[in-house]
Amino acid sequence: MGVDKGKKQKVGEVKEENGGTEHIDRELVLSIEKLQEIQDELEKINEEASEKVLEVEQKYNKIRKPVYDKRNDIIKTIPDFWLTAFMSHPALSELLTEEDQKIFKYLSNLEVKDCEDVKSGYSIAFHFKPNPYFEDTRLTKTFTFLEEGTTKITATSIKWKEGMGISNGVAEEKKGNKRSHAEESFFSWFSDTQHSGDIDEIQDEQVAEIIKDDLWPNPLTYFNNEADEEEFEMVDEDDEDKDSDGSENDDDQDDEDDDGEED
Amino acid sequence: MGVDKGKKQKVGEVKEENGGTEHIDRELVLSIEKLQEIQDELEKINEEASEKVLEVEQKYNKIRKPVYDKRNDIIKTIPDFWLTAFMSHPALSELLTEEDQKIFKYLSNLEVKDCEDVKSGYSIAFHFKPNPYFEDTRLTKTFTFLEEGTTKITATSIKWKEGMGISNGVAEEKKGNKRSHAEESFFSWFSDTQHSGDIDEIQDEQVAEIIKDDLWPNPLTYFNNEADEEEFEMVDEDDEDKDSDGSENDDDQDDEDDDGEED
Repeated sequence: MGVDKGKKQKVGEVKEENGGTEHIDRELVLSIEKLQEIQDELEKINEEASEKVLEVEQKYNKIRKPVYDKRNDIIKTIPDFWLTAFMSHPALSELLTEEDQKIFKYLSNLEVKDCEDVKSGYSIAFHFKPNPYFEDTRLTKTFTFLEEGTTKITATSIKWKEGMGISNGVAEEKKGNKRSHAEESFFSWFSDTQHSGDIDEIQDEQVAEIIKDDLWPNPLTYFNNEADEEEFEMVDEDDEDKDSDGSENDDDQDDEDDDGEED
Repeated sequence: MGVDKGKKQKVGEVKEENGGTEHIDRELVLSIEKLQEIQDELEKINEEASEKVLEVEQKYNKIRKPVYDKRNDIIKTIPDFWLTAFMSHPALSELLTEEDQKIFKYLSNLEVKDCEDVKSGYSIAFHFKPNPYFEDTRLTKTFTFLEEGTTKITATSIKWKEGMGISNGVAEEKKGNKRSHAEESFFSWFSDTQHSGDIDEIQDEQVAEIIKDDLWPNPLTYFNNEADEEEFEMVDEDDEDKDSDGSENDDDQDDEDDDGEED
Protein backbone atom coordinates (compact mmCIF):
# COMPACT_ATOMS: atom_id res chain seq x y z
CA MET A 1 0.00 0.00 0.00
CA GLY A 2 1.06 3.60 0.03
CA VAL A 3 2.48 3.34 -3.45
CA ASP A 4 -0.79 4.66 -4.73
CA LYS A 5 -0.15 7.98 -3.14
CA GLY A 6 2.94 8.44 -5.22
CA LYS A 7 1.38 11.30 -7.01
CA LYS A 8 1.23 13.29 -3.81
CA GLN A 9 4.64 12.11 -2.83
CA LYS A 10 5.91 13.54 -6.08
CA VAL A 11 4.37 16.93 -5.73
CA GLY A 12 5.29 16.88 -2.06
CA GLU A 13 8.88 16.09 -2.86
CA VAL A 14 9.18 19.10 -5.03
CA LYS A 15 7.78 21.45 -2.45
CA GLU A 16 9.38 20.05 0.62
CA GLU A 17 12.76 18.69 -0.21
CA ASN A 18 14.61 21.73 -1.33
CA GLY A 19 17.94 19.98 -1.25
CA GLY A 20 18.64 17.50 -3.98
CA THR A 21 15.39 17.98 -5.77
CA GLU A 22 15.69 21.66 -6.49
CA HIS A 23 16.83 20.80 -9.97
CA ILE A 24 13.76 18.61 -10.48
CA ASP A 25 11.65 21.39 -9.06
CA ARG A 26 12.89 23.93 -11.56
CA GLU A 27 12.52 21.43 -14.38
CA LEU A 28 8.95 20.66 -13.34
CA VAL A 29 8.02 24.32 -13.17
CA LEU A 30 9.48 24.84 -16.62
CA SER A 31 7.57 21.86 -18.01
CA ILE A 32 4.33 23.11 -16.56
CA GLU A 33 4.94 26.54 -18.03
CA LYS A 34 5.57 25.02 -21.42
CA LEU A 35 2.45 22.94 -21.01
CA GLN A 36 0.46 26.07 -20.20
CA GLU A 37 1.74 27.73 -23.37
CA ILE A 38 0.63 24.75 -25.39
CA GLN A 39 -2.79 24.80 -23.74
CA ASP A 40 -3.09 28.47 -24.66
CA GLU A 41 -2.15 27.62 -28.22
CA LEU A 42 -4.78 24.85 -28.29
CA GLU A 43 -7.39 27.20 -26.94
CA LYS A 44 -6.73 29.65 -29.72
CA ILE A 45 -7.07 26.88 -32.29
CA ASN A 46 -10.30 25.70 -30.66
CA GLU A 47 -11.77 29.18 -30.67
CA GLU A 48 -10.93 29.61 -34.32
CA ALA A 49 -12.45 26.22 -35.10
CA SER A 50 -15.65 27.09 -33.22
CA GLU A 51 -15.90 30.35 -35.11
CA LYS A 52 -15.53 28.59 -38.43
CA VAL A 53 -18.19 26.05 -37.48
CA LEU A 54 -20.53 28.87 -36.46
CA GLU A 55 -19.89 30.59 -39.76
CA VAL A 56 -20.92 27.43 -41.59
CA GLU A 57 -24.06 27.13 -39.45
CA GLN A 58 -24.94 30.78 -40.00
CA LYS A 59 -24.49 30.38 -43.72
CA TYR A 60 -26.76 27.35 -43.84
CA ASN A 61 -29.35 28.94 -41.58
CA LYS A 62 -29.61 31.66 -44.22
CA ILE A 63 -29.96 29.06 -46.94
CA ARG A 64 -32.63 27.21 -44.95
CA LYS A 65 -34.68 30.30 -44.08
CA PRO A 66 -36.59 30.73 -47.38
CA VAL A 67 -37.18 26.97 -47.51
CA TYR A 68 -38.67 26.99 -44.03
CA ASP A 69 -40.80 30.00 -45.01
CA LYS A 70 -42.08 28.13 -48.05
CA ARG A 71 -42.77 25.15 -45.80
CA ASN A 72 -44.76 27.27 -43.37
CA ASP A 73 -46.89 28.58 -46.23
CA ILE A 74 -47.84 25.05 -47.21
CA ILE A 75 -48.34 23.90 -43.64
CA LYS A 76 -50.88 26.70 -43.18
CA THR A 77 -53.03 25.12 -45.88
CA ILE A 78 -53.16 21.77 -44.03
CA PRO A 79 -55.83 21.73 -41.33
CA ASP A 80 -54.56 20.94 -37.83
CA PHE A 81 -51.08 20.23 -39.10
CA TRP A 82 -49.19 21.15 -35.95
CA LEU A 83 -51.81 19.65 -33.64
CA THR A 84 -51.55 16.39 -35.55
CA ALA A 85 -47.76 16.47 -35.59
CA PHE A 86 -47.60 17.18 -31.85
CA MET A 87 -50.15 14.48 -31.04
CA SER A 88 -48.27 11.98 -33.19
CA HIS A 89 -44.97 12.66 -31.48
CA PRO A 90 -44.29 10.13 -28.73
CA ALA A 91 -42.94 12.69 -26.29
CA LEU A 92 -44.79 15.88 -27.22
CA SER A 93 -48.23 14.24 -27.28
CA GLU A 94 -47.77 13.56 -23.57
CA LEU A 95 -47.57 17.26 -22.91
CA LEU A 96 -50.94 18.36 -24.26
CA THR A 97 -54.03 18.18 -22.11
CA GLU A 98 -57.38 17.79 -23.82
CA GLU A 99 -57.94 21.50 -23.42
CA ASP A 100 -54.52 22.23 -24.89
CA GLN A 101 -55.48 20.20 -27.93
CA LYS A 102 -58.50 22.44 -28.42
CA ILE A 103 -56.26 25.48 -28.24
CA PHE A 104 -53.76 23.89 -30.63
CA LYS A 105 -56.48 23.81 -33.29
CA TYR A 106 -55.85 27.56 -33.56
CA LEU A 107 -52.09 27.12 -33.97
CA SER A 108 -51.37 28.25 -37.51
CA ASN A 109 -47.64 28.48 -37.52
CA LEU A 110 -44.62 27.33 -35.59
CA GLU A 111 -41.18 28.80 -35.99
CA VAL A 112 -37.81 27.88 -34.52
CA LYS A 113 -35.08 30.43 -34.97
CA ASP A 114 -31.43 30.42 -33.98
CA CYS A 115 -30.01 33.69 -32.78
CA GLU A 116 -28.21 35.56 -35.50
CA ASP A 117 -24.84 34.41 -34.17
CA VAL A 118 -26.17 30.84 -33.66
CA LYS A 119 -24.20 30.27 -30.48
CA SER A 120 -26.10 32.50 -28.12
CA GLY A 121 -29.51 30.86 -28.20
CA TYR A 122 -32.74 30.31 -30.04
CA SER A 123 -36.44 31.03 -29.85
CA ILE A 124 -39.60 29.08 -30.55
CA ALA A 125 -42.65 31.04 -31.70
CA PHE A 126 -46.22 29.72 -31.82
CA HIS A 127 -48.54 31.75 -34.05
CA PHE A 128 -52.24 31.48 -33.27
CA LYS A 129 -55.35 32.43 -35.16
CA PRO A 130 -57.78 34.63 -33.20
CA ASN A 131 -59.20 32.26 -30.60
CA PRO A 132 -61.51 32.18 -27.60
CA TYR A 133 -58.66 31.43 -25.18
CA PHE A 134 -56.17 34.28 -25.22
CA GLU A 135 -55.57 37.66 -26.83
CA ASP A 136 -52.11 36.83 -28.11
CA THR A 137 -51.53 35.78 -31.69
CA ARG A 138 -47.95 34.89 -30.99
CA LEU A 139 -46.41 33.11 -28.01
CA THR A 140 -42.66 32.99 -27.87
CA LYS A 141 -40.19 31.23 -25.68
CA THR A 142 -36.57 32.31 -25.91
CA PHE A 143 -33.48 30.52 -24.63
CA THR A 144 -30.42 32.70 -24.26
CA PHE A 145 -27.12 30.99 -23.49
CA LEU A 146 -25.23 33.17 -21.06
CA GLU A 147 -21.46 33.43 -20.83
CA GLU A 148 -21.32 31.77 -17.43
CA GLY A 149 -22.82 28.61 -18.90
CA THR A 150 -26.41 29.02 -17.76
CA THR A 151 -29.46 29.60 -19.92
CA LYS A 152 -31.77 32.55 -19.54
CA ILE A 153 -35.36 31.64 -20.38
CA THR A 154 -37.94 34.24 -21.27
CA ALA A 155 -41.47 33.76 -22.57
CA THR A 156 -44.58 35.62 -23.60
CA SER A 157 -46.82 36.14 -20.64
CA ILE A 158 -50.14 34.87 -22.00
CA LYS A 159 -53.08 37.30 -21.90
CA TRP A 160 -55.85 34.80 -21.16
CA LYS A 161 -59.39 35.86 -21.92
CA GLU A 162 -61.85 36.07 -19.05
CA GLY A 163 -62.53 32.72 -17.43
CA MET A 164 -59.76 31.07 -19.43
CA GLY A 165 -56.17 30.41 -18.51
CA ILE A 166 -54.31 27.84 -16.58
CA SER A 167 -55.21 29.34 -13.25
CA ASN A 168 -58.87 29.32 -14.30
CA GLY A 169 -59.03 25.63 -14.84
CA VAL A 170 -58.47 25.38 -18.58
CA ALA A 171 -55.85 22.80 -17.88
CA GLU A 172 -57.85 20.90 -15.32
CA GLU A 173 -61.21 20.59 -17.10
CA LYS A 174 -62.96 17.33 -16.35
CA LYS A 175 -61.17 14.25 -17.58
CA GLY A 176 -63.84 11.56 -17.30
CA ASN A 177 -63.14 8.57 -19.47
CA LYS A 178 -61.09 10.51 -21.92
CA ARG A 179 -57.41 10.07 -22.25
CA SER A 180 -55.59 12.95 -20.74
CA HIS A 181 -51.90 12.84 -21.42
CA ALA A 182 -50.76 15.73 -19.40
CA GLU A 183 -51.49 16.65 -15.84
CA GLU A 184 -50.46 20.19 -16.43
CA SER A 185 -51.26 22.41 -19.39
CA PHE A 186 -48.58 22.74 -22.06
CA PHE A 187 -49.20 26.47 -21.81
CA SER A 188 -47.73 26.58 -18.33
CA TRP A 189 -44.46 26.20 -20.25
CA PHE A 190 -44.81 29.89 -21.09
CA SER A 191 -45.08 31.00 -17.52
CA ASP A 192 -42.42 28.63 -16.18
CA THR A 193 -39.51 30.99 -16.51
CA GLN A 194 -38.77 31.95 -12.96
CA HIS A 195 -36.98 28.89 -11.66
CA SER A 196 -33.25 28.92 -11.24
CA GLY A 197 -31.18 26.14 -12.71
CA ASP A 198 -33.22 23.31 -11.25
CA ILE A 199 -35.03 20.30 -12.64
CA ASP A 200 -37.86 22.44 -14.01
CA GLU A 201 -35.41 24.32 -16.13
CA ILE A 202 -33.94 21.11 -17.44
CA GLN A 203 -37.42 19.87 -18.37
CA ASP A 204 -38.17 23.25 -19.87
CA GLU A 205 -35.15 22.96 -22.08
CA GLN A 206 -35.82 19.35 -22.92
CA VAL A 207 -39.23 20.22 -24.32
CA ALA A 208 -37.66 23.04 -26.32
CA GLU A 209 -34.96 20.76 -27.64
CA ILE A 210 -37.44 18.13 -28.76
CA ILE A 211 -39.35 20.81 -30.65
CA LYS A 212 -36.19 22.34 -32.07
CA ASP A 213 -34.11 19.29 -32.89
CA ASP A 214 -36.73 16.64 -33.57
CA LEU A 215 -40.10 18.09 -34.54
CA TRP A 216 -39.01 21.20 -36.38
CA PRO A 217 -36.50 19.60 -38.79
CA ASN A 218 -39.15 17.19 -40.07
CA PRO A 219 -42.68 17.51 -38.68
CA LEU A 220 -44.04 15.67 -41.70
CA THR A 221 -42.74 12.32 -40.48
CA TYR A 222 -44.86 12.76 -37.36
CA PHE A 223 -47.86 14.09 -39.26
CA ASN A 224 -47.69 11.06 -41.54
CA ASN A 225 -47.30 8.78 -38.56
CA GLU A 226 -50.77 9.82 -37.54
CA ALA A 227 -52.19 9.46 -41.03
CA ASP A 228 -50.84 5.92 -41.17
CA GLU A 229 -52.85 4.94 -38.14
CA GLU A 230 -55.72 2.59 -38.62
CA GLU A 231 -58.35 4.48 -36.69
CA PHE A 232 -60.22 7.01 -38.74
CA GLU A 233 -63.61 6.93 -37.10
CA MET A 234 -65.51 10.14 -36.84
CA VAL A 235 -65.58 10.79 -33.16
CA ASP A 236 -67.72 13.61 -31.99
CA GLU A 237 -69.79 13.92 -28.84
CA ASP A 238 -69.46 10.26 -28.03
CA ASP A 239 -68.32 9.49 -24.52
CA GLU A 240 -68.24 5.71 -25.03
CA ASP A 241 -65.34 5.67 -27.43
CA LYS A 242 -62.73 4.81 -24.85
CA ASP A 243 -60.90 2.55 -27.17
CA SER A 244 -60.54 4.55 -30.34
CA ASP A 245 -59.73 7.40 -28.08
CA GLY A 246 -57.04 5.78 -26.04
CA SER A 247 -55.55 3.47 -28.58
CA GLU A 248 -53.03 5.84 -30.03
CA ASN A 249 -50.55 4.99 -27.35
CA ASP A 250 -51.64 1.47 -26.61
CA ASP A 251 -51.67 -0.14 -30.01
CA ASP A 252 -49.24 -0.47 -32.81
CA GLN A 253 -48.09 3.06 -33.18
CA ASP A 254 -45.26 4.04 -30.92
CA ASP A 255 -43.44 1.23 -29.24
CA GLU A 256 -40.81 3.68 -28.22
CA ASP A 257 -43.28 5.49 -26.14
CA ASP A 258 -44.66 2.37 -24.56
CA ASP A 259 -41.22 1.32 -23.48
CA GLY A 260 -40.66 4.63 -21.82
CA GLU A 261 -43.90 4.50 -19.94
CA GLU A 262 -44.02 0.98 -18.79
CA ASP A 263 -40.58 0.61 -17.35
CA MET B 1 -65.32 17.35 -25.47
CA GLY B 2 -64.63 15.59 -28.69
CA VAL B 3 -63.35 18.76 -30.24
CA ASP B 4 -59.90 17.71 -29.22
CA LYS B 5 -60.04 14.87 -31.66
CA GLY B 6 -60.50 17.26 -34.55
CA LYS B 7 -57.22 16.20 -35.99
CA LYS B 8 -58.50 12.68 -36.44
CA GLN B 9 -61.80 13.98 -37.67
CA LYS B 10 -59.92 15.83 -40.34
CA VAL B 11 -57.92 12.93 -41.58
CA GLY B 12 -60.99 10.77 -41.23
CA GLU B 13 -63.07 13.15 -43.29
CA VAL B 14 -60.67 13.01 -46.13
CA LYS B 15 -60.56 9.26 -46.24
CA GLU B 16 -64.18 8.51 -45.62
CA GLU B 17 -66.36 11.17 -47.12
CA ASN B 18 -65.67 10.86 -50.77
CA GLY B 19 -68.51 13.15 -51.74
CA GLY B 20 -68.10 16.84 -51.03
CA THR B 21 -64.63 16.55 -49.60
CA GLU B 22 -62.95 14.95 -52.59
CA HIS B 23 -61.65 18.35 -53.57
CA ILE B 24 -60.18 18.89 -50.11
CA ASP B 25 -58.75 15.40 -50.33
CA ARG B 26 -56.89 16.09 -53.55
CA GLU B 27 -55.68 19.43 -52.20
CA LEU B 28 -54.40 17.83 -49.02
CA VAL B 29 -52.53 15.14 -50.92
CA LEU B 30 -50.95 17.82 -53.10
CA SER B 31 -49.95 19.85 -50.06
CA ILE B 32 -48.37 16.85 -48.42
CA GLU B 33 -46.48 16.05 -51.60
CA LYS B 34 -45.18 19.59 -51.77
CA LEU B 35 -44.25 19.37 -48.11
CA GLN B 36 -42.33 16.19 -48.78
CA GLU B 37 -40.40 17.88 -51.58
CA ILE B 38 -39.49 20.69 -49.23
CA GLN B 39 -38.37 18.21 -46.59
CA ASP B 40 -36.17 16.53 -49.19
CA GLU B 41 -34.73 19.90 -50.07
CA LEU B 42 -34.06 20.64 -46.39
CA GLU B 43 -32.40 17.28 -45.97
CA LYS B 44 -30.02 18.01 -48.82
CA ILE B 45 -29.15 21.37 -47.26
CA ASN B 46 -28.61 19.72 -43.88
CA GLU B 47 -26.34 17.08 -45.37
CA GLU B 48 -24.30 19.71 -47.12
CA ALA B 49 -24.09 21.73 -43.89
CA SER B 50 -22.95 18.67 -41.92
CA GLU B 51 -20.29 17.94 -44.51
CA LYS B 52 -18.98 21.48 -44.32
CA VAL B 53 -18.88 21.33 -40.52
CA LEU B 54 -16.99 18.03 -40.70
CA GLU B 55 -14.54 19.56 -43.15
CA VAL B 56 -13.86 22.35 -40.68
CA GLU B 57 -13.38 19.84 -37.86
CA GLN B 58 -11.08 17.70 -39.96
CA LYS B 59 -9.05 20.73 -40.89
CA TYR B 60 -8.64 21.78 -37.26
CA ASN B 61 -7.89 18.24 -36.12
CA LYS B 62 -4.94 18.36 -38.50
CA ILE B 63 -3.87 21.72 -37.09
CA ARG B 64 -4.18 20.41 -33.53
CA LYS B 65 -2.28 17.17 -34.12
CA PRO B 66 1.32 18.52 -33.96
CA VAL B 67 0.37 20.65 -30.95
CA TYR B 68 -0.97 17.61 -29.11
CA ASP B 69 2.18 15.68 -30.05
CA LYS B 70 4.32 18.46 -28.63
CA ARG B 71 2.14 18.41 -25.51
CA ASN B 72 2.59 14.68 -25.08
CA ASP B 73 6.36 15.08 -25.28
CA ILE B 74 6.31 17.54 -22.40
CA ILE B 75 3.81 15.51 -20.38
CA LYS B 76 6.18 12.55 -20.54
CA THR B 77 8.75 14.59 -18.66
CA ILE B 78 6.34 15.27 -15.77
CA PRO B 79 6.25 12.40 -13.29
CA ASP B 80 2.79 10.87 -12.76
CA PHE B 81 1.15 13.51 -14.87
CA TRP B 82 -1.83 11.45 -16.00
CA LEU B 83 -2.28 9.73 -12.65
CA THR B 84 -2.40 13.13 -10.98
CA ALA B 85 -4.76 14.56 -13.59
CA PHE B 86 -7.10 11.57 -13.28
CA MET B 87 -7.04 11.65 -9.48
CA SER B 88 -7.74 15.38 -9.49
CA HIS B 89 -10.73 15.04 -11.77
CA PRO B 90 -13.97 14.89 -9.75
CA ALA B 91 -15.49 12.14 -11.89
CA LEU B 92 -12.48 10.18 -13.11
CA SER B 93 -10.88 9.90 -9.67
CA GLU B 94 -13.92 7.87 -8.61
CA LEU B 95 -13.07 5.25 -11.19
CA LEU B 96 -9.62 4.27 -10.03
CA THR B 97 -9.15 1.67 -7.34
CA GLU B 98 -6.01 1.85 -5.24
CA GLU B 99 -4.53 -0.90 -7.39
CA ASP B 100 -5.45 1.00 -10.54
CA GLN B 101 -3.55 3.98 -9.19
CA LYS B 102 -0.46 1.83 -8.88
CA ILE B 103 -0.85 0.74 -12.47
CA PHE B 104 -1.44 4.32 -13.60
CA LYS B 105 2.04 5.20 -12.36
CA TYR B 106 3.23 3.39 -15.50
CA LEU B 107 0.93 5.37 -17.78
CA SER B 108 3.28 7.43 -19.93
CA ASN B 109 0.99 8.73 -22.57
CA LEU B 110 -2.68 9.21 -23.30
CA GLU B 111 -4.07 9.89 -26.73
CA VAL B 112 -7.56 10.71 -27.97
CA LYS B 113 -8.06 10.51 -31.71
CA ASP B 114 -11.07 11.21 -33.89
CA CYS B 115 -11.54 8.93 -36.86
CA GLU B 116 -10.16 10.40 -40.04
CA ASP B 117 -13.66 11.46 -41.14
CA VAL B 118 -14.48 12.73 -37.61
CA LYS B 119 -18.09 11.61 -37.75
CA SER B 120 -17.61 7.87 -37.49
CA GLY B 121 -15.99 7.62 -34.09
CA TYR B 122 -12.89 8.02 -31.98
CA SER B 123 -10.38 6.05 -29.97
CA ILE B 124 -8.61 6.51 -26.67
CA ALA B 125 -5.16 4.99 -26.30
CA PHE B 126 -3.28 4.51 -23.02
CA HIS B 127 0.46 3.98 -23.44
CA PHE B 128 2.21 2.20 -20.60
CA LYS B 129 5.81 1.77 -19.65
CA PRO B 130 6.87 -1.85 -19.10
CA ASN B 131 5.17 -2.79 -15.85
CA PRO B 132 4.60 -5.74 -13.54
CA TYR B 133 0.87 -5.92 -14.31
CA PHE B 134 0.39 -6.66 -18.01
CA GLU B 135 2.35 -7.34 -21.17
CA ASP B 136 0.69 -4.61 -23.22
CA THR B 137 2.32 -1.23 -23.71
CA ARG B 138 -0.77 0.17 -25.30
CA LEU B 139 -4.42 -0.28 -24.34
CA THR B 140 -6.98 1.12 -26.73
CA LYS B 141 -10.71 1.57 -26.59
CA THR B 142 -12.45 2.45 -29.83
CA PHE B 143 -15.96 3.81 -30.32
CA THR B 144 -17.34 3.40 -33.81
CA PHE B 145 -20.61 5.13 -34.62
CA LEU B 146 -22.63 2.82 -36.83
CA GLU B 147 -25.11 3.95 -39.46
CA GLU B 148 -28.09 2.64 -37.53
CA GLY B 149 -27.32 4.99 -34.67
CA THR B 150 -25.63 2.56 -32.30
CA THR B 151 -22.03 2.56 -31.21
CA LYS B 152 -19.69 -0.35 -31.64
CA ILE B 153 -17.18 -0.57 -28.82
CA THR B 154 -13.94 -2.49 -29.16
CA ALA B 155 -11.01 -2.63 -26.79
CA THR B 156 -7.61 -4.18 -26.27
CA SER B 157 -7.95 -7.42 -24.43
CA ILE B 158 -5.40 -6.98 -21.66
CA LYS B 159 -2.69 -9.63 -21.37
CA TRP B 160 -2.34 -9.69 -17.59
CA LYS B 161 0.84 -11.14 -16.16
CA GLU B 162 0.58 -14.20 -14.02
CA GLY B 163 -1.32 -13.58 -10.79
CA MET B 164 -2.38 -10.15 -11.94
CA GLY B 165 -5.54 -9.04 -13.65
CA ILE B 166 -9.00 -8.17 -12.59
CA SER B 167 -10.07 -11.78 -12.23
CA ASN B 168 -7.03 -12.39 -10.09
CA GLY B 169 -7.92 -9.86 -7.52
CA VAL B 170 -5.89 -6.87 -8.63
CA ALA B 171 -9.01 -4.82 -8.39
CA GLU B 172 -10.16 -6.26 -5.11
CA GLU B 173 -6.95 -6.18 -3.09
CA LYS B 174 -7.54 -5.43 0.57
CA LYS B 175 -8.94 -2.03 1.24
CA GLY B 176 -8.53 -1.62 5.01
CA ASN B 177 -8.81 1.93 6.18
CA LYS B 178 -7.65 3.34 2.93
CA ARG B 179 -9.89 5.27 0.68
CA SER B 180 -10.97 3.26 -2.27
CA HIS B 181 -12.92 5.24 -4.80
CA ALA B 182 -13.96 2.53 -7.13
CA GLU B 183 -15.51 -0.80 -6.42
CA GLU B 184 -14.48 -2.13 -9.77
CA SER B 185 -11.15 -1.73 -11.52
CA PHE B 186 -10.94 0.96 -14.17
CA PHE B 187 -9.31 -1.69 -16.31
CA SER B 188 -12.54 -3.66 -16.53
CA TRP B 189 -13.48 -0.82 -18.90
CA PHE B 190 -11.31 -2.56 -21.47
CA SER B 191 -13.13 -5.85 -21.21
CA ASP B 192 -16.64 -4.38 -20.99
CA THR B 193 -17.39 -4.46 -24.67
CA GLN B 194 -19.90 -7.24 -24.98
CA HIS B 195 -23.09 -5.66 -23.68
CA SER B 196 -25.75 -4.52 -26.09
CA GLY B 197 -27.15 -1.01 -25.86
CA ASP B 198 -27.82 -1.13 -22.15
CA ILE B 199 -26.83 0.97 -19.16
CA ASP B 200 -23.31 -0.44 -19.15
CA GLU B 201 -22.76 0.82 -22.63
CA ILE B 202 -24.01 4.25 -21.68
CA GLN B 203 -21.63 4.33 -18.70
CA ASP B 204 -18.86 3.06 -20.94
CA GLU B 205 -19.42 5.95 -23.30
CA GLN B 206 -19.80 8.46 -20.51
CA VAL B 207 -16.36 7.61 -19.18
CA ALA B 208 -14.95 7.92 -22.70
CA GLU B 209 -16.66 11.26 -23.23
CA ILE B 210 -15.32 12.67 -19.98
CA ILE B 211 -11.82 11.67 -21.04
CA LYS B 212 -12.31 12.95 -24.58
CA ASP B 213 -14.26 16.15 -24.00
CA ASP B 214 -13.13 17.22 -20.56
CA LEU B 215 -9.77 15.76 -19.56
CA TRP B 216 -8.05 15.59 -22.94
CA PRO B 217 -8.66 19.20 -24.05
CA ASN B 218 -7.02 20.55 -20.91
CA PRO B 219 -5.55 18.05 -18.45
CA LEU B 220 -3.35 20.75 -16.98
CA THR B 221 -6.26 22.40 -15.19
CA TYR B 222 -6.82 19.15 -13.32
CA PHE B 223 -3.14 18.54 -12.73
CA ASN B 224 -2.85 22.02 -11.23
CA ASN B 225 -5.94 21.42 -9.17
CA GLU B 226 -4.00 18.76 -7.33
CA ALA B 227 -0.92 20.93 -6.95
CA ASP B 228 -3.03 23.65 -5.38
CA GLU B 229 -4.11 21.34 -2.61
CA GLU B 230 -2.86 21.97 0.87
CA GLU B 231 -1.84 18.47 1.80
CA PHE B 232 1.68 17.59 0.85
CA GLU B 233 2.59 15.17 3.60
CA MET B 234 4.73 12.27 2.68
CA VAL B 235 2.51 9.30 3.21
CA ASP B 236 4.06 5.93 3.02
CA GLU B 237 3.42 2.77 4.96
CA ASP B 238 1.24 4.47 7.52
CA ASP B 239 -2.12 2.90 8.09
CA GLU B 240 -3.29 5.53 10.56
CA ASP B 241 -3.41 8.36 8.12
CA LYS B 242 -7.09 8.10 7.40
CA ASP B 243 -7.48 11.78 7.25
CA SER B 244 -4.71 12.95 5.01
CA ASP B 245 -5.57 9.99 2.88
CA GLY B 246 -9.26 10.58 2.56
CA SER B 247 -9.32 14.32 2.63
CA GLU B 248 -8.97 14.85 -1.06
CA ASN B 249 -12.68 14.51 -1.50
CA ASP B 250 -13.83 15.74 1.87
CA ASP B 251 -12.12 19.06 2.26
CA ASP B 252 -11.81 22.16 0.20
CA GLN B 253 -10.84 20.71 -3.11
CA ASP B 254 -13.79 19.75 -5.22
CA ASP B 255 -17.07 21.20 -4.15
CA GLU B 256 -18.52 20.09 -7.43
CA ASP B 257 -17.92 16.53 -6.51
CA ASP B 258 -19.27 16.90 -3.01
CA ASP B 259 -22.48 18.35 -4.31
CA GLY B 260 -22.94 15.45 -6.60
CA GLU B 261 -22.37 12.95 -3.85
CA GLU B 262 -24.31 14.45 -1.05
CA ASP B 263 -27.58 15.22 -2.76
